[in-house]
Amino acid sequence: MLDDLLKACDFIAKRNLCPATGGNFSLREADNSMCMSASGKDKSNLSEKDFVLCNLDGQWLSGEGKPSAEAGLHGMIYQLSPATHCVLHTHSIPVTVLSMLPETGDKLSFQGYEMQKTIAGFQSHEETLDLYIFDNNQHIPTLAAQVKALWEVTQRASGLIVRGHGLYSWGRSVHEAKRHMEGLEFLVECELNRKRLLA
Amino acid sequence: MLDDLLKACDFIAKRNLCPATGGNFSLREADNSMCMSASGKDKSNLSEKDFVLCNLDGQWLSGEGKPSAEAGLHGMIYQLSPATHCVLHTHSIPVTVLSMLPETGDKLSFQGYEMQKTIAGFQSHEETLDLYIFDNNQHIPTLAAQVKALWEVTQRASGLIVRGHGLYSWGRSVHEAKRHMEGLEFLVECELNRKRLLA
Amino acid sequence: MLDDLLKACDFIAKRNLCPATGGNFSLREADNSMCMSASGKDKSNLSEKDFVLCNLDGQWLSGEGKPSAEAGLHGMIYQLSPATHCVLHTHSIPVTVLSMLPETGDKLSFQGYEMQKTIAGFQSHEETLDLYIFDNNQHIPTLAAQVKALWEVTQRASGLIVRGHGLYSWGRSVHEAKRHMEGLEFLVECELNRKRLLA
Amino acid sequence: MLDDLLKACDFIAKRNLCPATGGNFSLREADNSMCMSASGKDKSNLSEKDFVLCNLDGQWLSGEGKPSAEAGLHGMIYQLSPATHCVLHTHSIPVTVLSMLPETGDKLSFQGYEMQKTIAGFQSHEETLDLYIFDNNQHIPTLAAQVKALWEVTQRASGLIVRGHGLYSWGRSVHEAKRHMEGLEFLVECELNRKRLLA
Repeated sequence: MLDDLLKACDFIAKRNLCPATGGNFSLREADNSMCMSASGKDKSNLSEKDFVLCNLDGQWLSGEGKPSAEAGLHGMIYQLSPATHCVLHTHSIPVTVLSMLPETGDKLSFQGYEMQKTIAGFQSHEETLDLYIFDNNQHIPTLAAQVKALWEVTQRASGLIVRGHGLYSWGRSVHEAKRHMEGLEFLVECELNRKRLLA
Repeated sequence: MLDDLLKACDFIAKRNLCPATGGNFSLREADNSMCMSASGKDKSNLSEKDFVLCNLDGQWLSGEGKPSAEAGLHGMIYQLSPATHCVLHTHSIPVTVLSMLPETGDKLSFQGYEMQKTIAGFQSHEETLDLYIFDNNQHIPTLAAQVKALWEVTQRASGLIVRGHGLYSWGRSVHEAKRHMEGLEFLVECELNRKRLLA
Repeated sequence: MLDDLLKACDFIAKRNLCPATGGNFSLREADNSMCMSASGKDKSNLSEKDFVLCNLDGQWLSGEGKPSAEAGLHGMIYQLSPATHCVLHTHSIPVTVLSMLPETGDKLSFQGYEMQKTIAGFQSHEETLDLYIFDNNQHIPTLAAQVKALWEVTQRASGLIVRGHGLYSWGRSVHEAKRHMEGLEFLVECELNRKRLLA
Repeated sequence: MLDDLLKACDFIAKRNLCPATGGNFSLREADNSMCMSASGKDKSNLSEKDFVLCNLDGQWLSGEGKPSAEAGLHGMIYQLSPATHCVLHTHSIPVTVLSMLPETGDKLSFQGYEMQKTIAGFQSHEETLDLYIFDNNQHIPTLAAQVKALWEVTQRASGLIVRGHGLYSWGRSVHEAKRHMEGLEFLVECELNRKRLLA
């Protein structure tokens, strides 16, 4: 499964979704642990040795390098969602820009897009897909607690945004997490384009 | 010919025209059947085994996986146009955004673009190329019936748009279908850019 | 030198500057002839056999396929500029869009850009670089005659635009023609971005 | 370390950050010298032989080709910052456009972006990152003197902009300089997008 994740990382880097060593990517492992990209790595050229093993509180267990501070947020998602086996955190320009606009509140609501159906559980473009936005916070346990508090509604989108920072997407497999990431990034980029035209 | 289609799919995926397993691609086969990309595949890495055989009503005949629900629309195009041997359905951001704008009606009209000449049957930038837009509908037979009803005018563009969803392009060969797809995507992206500047 | 041109074509195709078989590329040959990409070829995968030999009036001399109608315009540039050995004709979205805006007249004037210095003969960003725009015309001899009539001023930019159609760039070598093409496409894309912001 | 730089150059060229032979890249060498990409090279295909050795005043010492006039600015940065081992000078469209807008003054101030933390010395998105802009000048010693005069504040960003020209980024290693370049280009592109939406 790490092979699948390395291919997904390569795809993400080529799309410029994790510039400047930004972003981090993880897989659930047995025994309440996860395998996670080490902090500060250039994501355009990852290999197996660039991953460390952490527990679900984000603490280092083994491997070379240290986990990102954001490991705690990956771990919280695995704790809240037993079916989730992969979490992808990307840093795209559209997510950063749209989440920082003065008129953007605590969620983006998508309606009328066929692409909504790529998110597990959605059947039609006529449904509404809400993607929640959390204010950025350098204290990850605080951020993780906020995500936990809102989990009942947040989980439906299989993703969430940290304002001015990036997108977290997850799924039952690398394949599904990547599909959710691509779908949510697509929807955000469409919405940003619409804003430009309707402004 | 499947080799040509696989190369075209790879090109389409690299251009980010079918993110999140979106889009589907088909070839006409003998005996009123078509070969079609199976549902849910990551289009950035297709091979021969990712295609199934369907009849022109979109029903599965053989192969691993199931055809997309949209197979019925591919099949309708093959039924309406005996000369068509390839149908490409892409999900691009410009087509999605432009087709969803409040002021966008039931067609886009292009005039003055040299690129219009890439569509079979067009000789000059001074002609008008109409690209028809159909409202999205999760019930594909309804959508296919609407396409059939408007076929006399729709076919001229060698393509049509489903609103908030994507573009269908077709041609007598993979080469021509790809050329039509690239030309129509180009025209839509130009028009979206013009809207930004004229707004 | 055809090897250099094939590499430049590949670069141009990867940058999506000649979609849908658009664009054409040529080299001056001995005896008042030129080697030119044949009409209708997918530019993302050219090889030596996709080129034909024409005279400088754009008439076919040898090779498989036929020259584009625009061969006459390439030939006119070689006739007007004895030092030119390569002509690149690209079809980009920014050139198409900017040249078609209602307020765009018969030239674009660039001032203040370091990139102007990439055009042969320019020494400073404080100079003014004028890039002339010709109305599109399906009758290439008419267009070629107009280019000839304005050559004294047009040649300074090492490029010219056909409205709603694309850019012609040229140079003493493939290397220089490619540099001019990249520089002029960069300047047009900057100007289009500025228009969006100053609108 | 030149291997690392060649990989970074390839990355930069693929991202279209140094079109038309623009941009130049250097490494500090022993004895107050630097290794620098020679002038006029196509940056999409550099190899070891495309670099020359200069002193920190930008004067040629050895190697085939001549250093860019901008070598003097690279050298000034090495003189001012003993810890710097790599300088990357890119020519992107967003940096060019944003720095030339009439309302853009002598610095860009970023606040609220997680990406600010990719710049050495920044700990939080709540800090303010100032990126200074210098007016373009064909006389490099004048420009270098201006950079020197403002160094106390400029250095904090690990980068600076020359108006209408491009970005200089630097770091203690190729890895860090590339990270700074990607982070600053990201921030400028975000800010340009915000301007489009807030206009």
